[in-house]
Amino acid sequence: MQSEVSHLNEECGVFGVWGTSDAAFLTYTGLFSLQHRGQEGAGITINNNGQLRTKRDLGLLNDVFDTVELEKLQGQAAIGHVRYSTAGSNLLENIQPLPFNFSDTQFALAHNGNLTNAQTIRQTLEDRGAIYQSSSDSENLMHLIRLSKEPTLDEQVKDALRQIKGGFAYLLLTKDCLYAALDPNGFRPLVVGKLPNGGFVVCSETCALNAVGATFLCDVQPGQLLKIDHNGLSVSTYAADTQLAICSMEFIYFARPDSDIYGVNVHSARKRMGALLAKEQAVDADIVIGIPNSSLSAAMGYAQESGLPYEMGLVKNQYSGRTFIQPTKKLREQGVNMKLSAVKGVVAGKRVVLVDDSIVRGTTSRRIVKLLKDAGATEVHLRIASPELKYPCFYGIDIQHASELIAANQTLSEMCQTFGADSLGFLSVPSLIKAVGLETGAPNGSLCVAYFDGKYPTPLYDYQKQYDAEQEALHHRDVKTIATVL
Amino acid sequence: MQSEVSHLNEECGVFGVWGTSDAAFLTYTGLFSLQHRGQEGAGITINNNGQLRTKRDLGLLNDVFDTVELEKLQGQAAIGHVRYSTAGSNLLENIQPLPFNFSDTQFALAHNGNLTNAQTIRQTLEDRGAIYQSSSDSENLMHLIRLSKEPTLDEQVKDALRQIKGGFAYLLLTKDCLYAALDPNGFRPLVVGKLPNGGFVVCSETCALNAVGATFLCDVQPGQLLKIDHNGLSVSTYAADTQLAICSMEFIYFARPDSDIYGVNVHSARKRMGALLAKEQAVDADIVIGIPNSSLSAAMGYAQESGLPYEMGLVKNQYSGRTFIQPTKKLREQGVNMKLSAVKGVVAGKRVVLVDDSIVRGTTSRRIVKLLKDAGATEVHLRIASPELKYPCFYGIDIQHASELIAANQTLSEMCQTFGADSLGFLSVPSLIKAVGLETGAPNGSLCVAYFDGKYPTPLYDYQKQYDAEQEALHHRDVKTIATVL
Amino acid sequence: MQSEVSHLNEECGVFGVWGTSDAAFLTYTGLFSLQHRGQEGAGITINNNGQLRTKRDLGLLNDVFDTVELEKLQGQAAIGHVRYSTAGSNLLENIQPLPFNFSDTQFALAHNGNLTNAQTIRQTLEDRGAIYQSSSDSENLMHLIRLSKEPTLDEQVKDALRQIKGGFAYLLLTKDCLYAALDPNGFRPLVVGKLPNGGFVVCSETCALNAVGATFLCDVQPGQLLKIDHNGLSVSTYAADTQLAICSMEFIYFARPDSDIYGVNVHSARKRMGALLAKEQAVDADIVIGIPNSSLSAAMGYAQESGLPYEMGLVKNQYSGRTFIQPTKKLREQGVNMKLSAVKGVVAGKRVVLVDDSIVRGTTSRRIVKLLKDAGATEVHLRIASPELKYPCFYGIDIQHASELIAANQTLSEMCQTFGADSLGFLSVPSLIKAVGLETGAPNGSLCVAYFDGKYPTPLYDYQKQYDAEQEALHHRDVKTIATVL
Amino acid sequence: MQSEVSHLNEECGVFGVWGTSDAAFLTYTGLFSLQHRGQEGAGITINNNGQLRTKRDLGLLNDVFDTVELEKLQGQAAIGHVRYSTAGSNLLENIQPLPFNFSDTQFALAHNGNLTNAQTIRQTLEDRGAIYQSSSDSENLMHLIRLSKEPTLDEQVKDALRQIKGGFAYLLLTKDCLYAALDPNGFRPLVVGKLPNGGFVVCSETCALNAVGATFLCDVQPGQLLKIDHNGLSVSTYAADTQLAICSMEFIYFARPDSDIYGVNVHSARKRMGALLAKEQAVDADIVIGIPNSSLSAAMGYAQESGLPYEMGLVKNQYSGRTFIQPTKKLREQGVNMKLSAVKGVVAGKRVVLVDDSIVRGTTSRRIVKLLKDAGATEVHLRIASPELKYPCFYGIDIQHASELIAANQTLSEMCQTFGADSLGFLSVPSLIKAVGLETGAPNGSLCVAYFDGKYPTPLYDYQKQYDAEQEALHHRDVKTIATVL
Repeated sequence: MQSEVSHLNEECGVFGVWGTSDAAFLTYTGLFSLQHRGQEGAGITINNNGQLRTKRDLGLLNDVFDTVELEKLQGQAAIGHVRYSTAGSNLLENIQPLPFNFSDTQFALAHNGNLTNAQTIRQTLEDRGAIYQSSSDSENLMHLIRLSKEPTLDEQVKDALRQIKGGFAYLLLTKDCLYAALDPNGFRPLVVGKLPNGGFVVCSETCALNAVGATFLCDVQPGQLLKIDHNGLSVSTYAADTQLAICSMEFIYFARPDSDIYGVNVHSARKRMGALLAKEQAVDADIVIGIPNSSLSAAMGYAQESGLPYEMGLVKNQYSGRTFIQPTKKLREQGVNMKLSAVKGVVAGKRVVLVDDSIVRGTTSRRIVKLLKDAGATEVHLRIASPELKYPCFYGIDIQHASELIAANQTLSEMCQTFGADSLGFLSVPSLIKAVGLETGAPNGSLCVAYFDGKYPTPLYDYQKQYDAEQEALHHRDVKTIATVL
Repeated sequence: MQSEVSHLNEECGVFGVWGTSDAAFLTYTGLFSLQHRGQEGAGITINNNGQLRTKRDLGLLNDVFDTVELEKLQGQAAIGHVRYSTAGSNLLENIQPLPFNFSDTQFALAHNGNLTNAQTIRQTLEDRGAIYQSSSDSENLMHLIRLSKEPTLDEQVKDALRQIKGGFAYLLLTKDCLYAALDPNGFRPLVVGKLPNGGFVVCSETCALNAVGATFLCDVQPGQLLKIDHNGLSVSTYAADTQLAICSMEFIYFARPDSDIYGVNVHSARKRMGALLAKEQAVDADIVIGIPNSSLSAAMGYAQESGLPYEMGLVKNQYSGRTFIQPTKKLREQGVNMKLSAVKGVVAGKRVVLVDDSIVRGTTSRRIVKLLKDAGATEVHLRIASPELKYPCFYGIDIQHASELIAANQTLSEMCQTFGADSLGFLSVPSLIKAVGLETGAPNGSLCVAYFDGKYPTPLYDYQKQYDAEQEALHHRDVKTIATVL
Repeated sequence: MQSEVSHLNEECGVFGVWGTSDAAFLTYTGLFSLQHRGQEGAGITINNNGQLRTKRDLGLLNDVFDTVELEKLQGQAAIGHVRYSTAGSNLLENIQPLPFNFSDTQFALAHNGNLTNAQTIRQTLEDRGAIYQSSSDSENLMHLIRLSKEPTLDEQVKDALRQIKGGFAYLLLTKDCLYAALDPNGFRPLVVGKLPNGGFVVCSETCALNAVGATFLCDVQPGQLLKIDHNGLSVSTYAADTQLAICSMEFIYFARPDSDIYGVNVHSARKRMGALLAKEQAVDADIVIGIPNSSLSAAMGYAQESGLPYEMGLVKNQYSGRTFIQPTKKLREQGVNMKLSAVKGVVAGKRVVLVDDSIVRGTTSRRIVKLLKDAGATEVHLRIASPELKYPCFYGIDIQHASELIAANQTLSEMCQTFGADSLGFLSVPSLIKAVGLETGAPNGSLCVAYFDGKYPTPLYDYQKQYDAEQEALHHRDVKTIATVL
Repeated sequence: MQSEVSHLNEECGVFGVWGTSDAAFLTYTGLFSLQHRGQEGAGITINNNGQLRTKRDLGLLNDVFDTVELEKLQGQAAIGHVRYSTAGSNLLENIQPLPFNFSDTQFALAHNGNLTNAQTIRQTLEDRGAIYQSSSDSENLMHLIRLSKEPTLDEQVKDALRQIKGGFAYLLLTKDCLYAALDPNGFRPLVVGKLPNGGFVVCSETCALNAVGATFLCDVQPGQLLKIDHNGLSVSTYAADTQLAICSMEFIYFARPDSDIYGVNVHSARKRMGALLAKEQAVDADIVIGIPNSSLSAAMGYAQESGLPYEMGLVKNQYSGRTFIQPTKKLREQGVNMKLSAVKGVVAGKRVVLVDDSIVRGTTSRRIVKLLKDAGATEVHLRIASPELKYPCFYGIDIQHASELIAANQTLSEMCQTFGADSLGFLSVPSLIKAVGLETGAPNGSLCVAYFDGKYPTPLYDYQKQYDAEQEALHHRDVKTIATVL
């Protein structure tokens, strides 16, 4: 579901299933519907009568699994993971699920999110002789579980969960059960479904429930630990102090439009963002277009509210979902484009409202404005269906430095010039909150909007120092720097 | 650009380029944008300083070509082909371009379309000792060229073209030039573009021109032969008696929405089909949705004309463009769906107008109606943005038997019941013609609409006898047959 | 079975089977045992109830066929081919079996050998409009068969065979039968075997009969045409004037040591060559070693006759049978060797007799002499178990120019110096003939020894002119040329 | 170098290099020459300016690495591993080198051998919360290093090495250096070489030194720890109490014939084993043949000593080094054989001495005797160039149960009957020791011969209990059992 001009990178999607002879295939199918959450690595751990076996590799799901590989994974329970890996860390050993083999048992771990005190935990444990296979923060949980002095595995898991901070939706597969846990703020989505045969599914989005023919049971709540075994599903709480602050970028950009998060349909929320954007950022124009596929919902909303015709001004190649041979820079400059093209017959001679879901670096915005003008658009008014991204995220989105964010470095008019647009407008934070419309009592409509206002719902732990230093630097440096390198 | 529920199969897309050091990569890029025209085989023939070399295989473009393979194909001119192969004939030797190696020269042939007198020609030539490598009709042209007694290759090619009947857009690469030819009715689209460096491109659709950064020069006209060599482009005519009758299914379903055919933008034509459909087949409902991606344009038109909200009721997996591991029948019946899902948040409790571009067998229509009802739609009104497909096509679409067409076997009300829809309506032929709106003087607005009315613009040659027999049988048999097997 | 330092390239191995449900697998197995006859391409055509289907590609058998591909080829009869392709002609369309698809029938052709009048035939047929898919000489036979005016296919095949000249062992698979034909001189080996279930096998060497569990029935004789169908095997003769002149290089180098050709075991013949070489080219030394694997038999014979100890002085990597990543030239010069290594513990301080089967360019001889001296050998006496290769072959071995043959360009002492050897000796032609010891009355003990004495058993047809010119040039040019480029 | 009829499985080969820009390619080349030591998995860890990166997977080296993968591994130092994995444990996470990523550093570990106290260590550490990624014994070393309280890494490594028991040749790559360590008995071979550019190589066999153009420097001695860094090579000792007891199976079967172990050439040692076997187990016969390739050296020695002609009675397919499609059981019974064939022309009518290097289960011995008799051998006298294998090995060979060893279950005459041989004879232990001829003062000529006499040079630690139980059982059960299941 990503825009062609993608930018923000979610750190992963998870899928787990318990109690079906098709465990591997259902996990494959579920991950296939979650592929938009991570394209750089994929893996599945199968539990076959208590024996765990993991297959994982770099690449898209279909690069990692073929029929032969999948058939090797016969079993009754499984967890799977699709991963986005941050630059430089695309080590095979970081691809999840992370497998652990003990004398008498086996575990596998899949994690969506980012821990904020991982460095501290790791340093402490390494100093005591702990061995790490990966460089990922996810591995810490396994160590904490094994180090826990609690009498039962259930209690050990809870003990461990209480020690980690940040954003996390964890799946943990053992010989005997499947655990699922969500952080106390519920930064990342996690839902439970039921298969026709009575088996259970836990996964990042409801679209994966639909894909495998499961019915929605519930959203996992902040601070909950679920356990699924031969006795069925049991829910408990490991943290007392919880407050929902689900990542607003899930609604804005990450999640699939057909998914529901805490009862709110993602497409509908985006449409409302577009409609409120039309109110806040009206413009005199001929047509409204969205960037396929992530911005279409917001564009529909903008068009409907503004009364302007909704049009198909850009077309995305349907076969570009996977890797293909990239054109050289020279060819790209000559207009060679493998993925996106303007519909000249639609935009030529028109004043266009171009709706995008969000802007990170701004590189692709500039390219698309140019594409439309080359195709004959007389004016291009860029409207962003989310507020200005100005602050990093430490809960599972790959923006850890404000220096990468154009809105942290340029004024509105500078950005407009950078993009070559005729005007530029963003959605306000209150409108975002209103558009999502979660009916819980938590602050910011139960959303995390820290990327927009810098008010983080938790301490930043290991990241605090770096964050403070960067904010300091940002306020002193030449804010033009980023514009010149675009 | 095909609907998930695809059905009609175009027989191929072609792309040729002359005069650039990036010939192989541009052909790859052009074919990538034409992948929707054929997914079962792909090939490229490169001309490197007069030496021709062909790489072709079964599969998508990206299955056939990787960086290593593509780098082996260095040269200054090339032709390429993406193929849909009819069942049972997926022989490697049928994948195009077809290579020919002679004592003193080489040729390669790429063909979009279907010849109607191929059998007769082949039988005659085989009786005289001719050898065929493939079982495809395309190969005949090469034989006729080599058998021609004309003094020059130009004249031999024209001589050969005059002997073949049916629908064809041919590319012929030689050591010294690139030929492009269109049949006298222009059944298939073929356009010419110019590269920034002065090189030429000839290809099936304008979307491929955009993809490689070429500017549109002209549509190839019925009965024309183009030749591109070191002297540039020269255009001549090989047939006196021409009359444009471009395949209306190109506008309805095959072509990419961003392509223009004879000056008409495909997306816009589809939108007009939807708008006229809304007039002809109005219904009281809450929302209008299209089947992604091929029916979205028509759905937009329907919504706009009817005043009903245009909505995103179905979502297509963005990674399903390529092959993936198929679920078993049992899992499909349990609702496992790798490609398409309903947006429950949008359709639940709604009376839905479901717009589809066309109906062939009807199998997928039934499945999607069920998907929507399972997601909570209270009514599903199926509206088809084209007339009822009742007659076979012999010019390049893979429907050669009326028995495969539900509309040739069931009444409107029977079909409605078959699909489980609450109502069903088709676009009329005159509205189709009006929606496309080609401003030439040829009959049916210069379109071929024979699949709808059975009036073929040419004799059927080798197919006449079979056609007559099938029509006879159809009028006598139990028209319920097809419904029961759905 | 080739020496690591391989040089001469056989043009292919063929395998055909009729009458077994395991046709594809047996053909795969047979070809696997014939892989030494060609490593650059492989293919199988299966006949499944009268339907022919061909899979072929560049690479080793195991690169072309995996379990999935092989299982697609279910049928009751098949032919297969492993190919060595001469430089520059490694076109996919040249990989055999060559498939032919006609209106009413199909054929597939596999050929070992080289036609000497292919150019003339092709030119004549092309002038009449014939189309060629490949650039290979093998394709001519199909044209001649189809052009024949004879009333039956049997007679057409014979008619066609009578028109082609040179060396050939042909397999032709049709819907109804399997033909096998040998040229009038029997230049290439071809044998028939019987499967336990009564089915028949025809293939290049008896090692393939053993590999598939077939028992040897007979050698195909010069000028014979065999036909295998549901009636069993029938043998007829298409040529009156025949005289056995089997390629002596089959005994010297090509064939596997466990194969028998016309009743003579190849290993035993090679051992006798080594023994006679020891008599003709005795030397005072400590040990005898052969180059694995092709020269081991001759080395054994040399050792036995000379009374010197037979030793393992060189070891070949057992995993180098297939492609691997090649070292750079710089690394090769630093002694990096993926394939062959000297056994220092054996050769250090020794006077070594190094037996090789034959010398073509001489490049590898020089490298191996150096390898042994670097390992401490005090003297290396190079003994070649065949006569000096001075003339090209036109019947199926890839030496078509005398300029490529060091023995045609240097004297014995010059060669010895080139190789860095302490002495050099070759086997005489009479000893070669005696060693093979075929008990038929044909000249040269029924062998073709033209590469050694320039006396070809047939006219050279299309090659005569080129041959005469090259011989003329050779006698006038500086014979040192080749040495300097080594 | 394994016999076709392989049986014993070495647990791995290691290769490390320090100080060359070609580190990855040299490691690839070195492992290629060590492929005979393990075919089920391969991996390389590269050190690129202090960054470690590991690529490993199931399969042969050439299945794991292609040019693209290898080029990704640019660096100045590397270690690599080829692995034989015992049944059931072919988990990807067990493929070595094992990678470890810490907050501030990285390690990679490659191990040849088997630890005898691994279970105890692991249990102890796991009880304290240690996490294991693999189920392999090798991983323990990393834990012990990290847990060591010693002040320097050098001392920590030594501390760890002193805690592990059994057979091991370890390579440990860090950001700054390469460690190599050998167990106090030197059960497994490990040698050091020098590259032309001054870099160092440490690897399992000297054949790998030759392969990469390195010159032999020294054998690593029992109880030594080597360290290679920018200061060059430094050697220290971590264990006081050492006594060489190198695995005699390295000489008998595992090592390549061109390798030298402690100065003894493997081929020459085998030849002497064959010669002493001829003295001890003389027989009246016509020819001597060996099973290619592992038994050829011993067969040569037998022939030379006995005065009988050494012959090539069996031929091995040169392309069977890698995986290929296996025949069905039915086809194998019909004589389909992909790998080995008898040379009928050699063995027919002959009384054959068949020399094999060793016998484990005996399955293949029976098959080869039958192959020879089917090919016409009148008598087959089986001579084994090593003593009877009666006891398990716990130092790195995959025989951990006496029940798998036919010689532990049958008498000589029973075995002879099982194999269908006309006579059977083994080499004595004293002759084995004499044949190897190591000139050190340790017991058994510095060899471990425990598989033959049950006298283990070390305590068995974790294996003692199982061993005692099995020995007990063996002496009470029906010794015919194994024969009947062959």
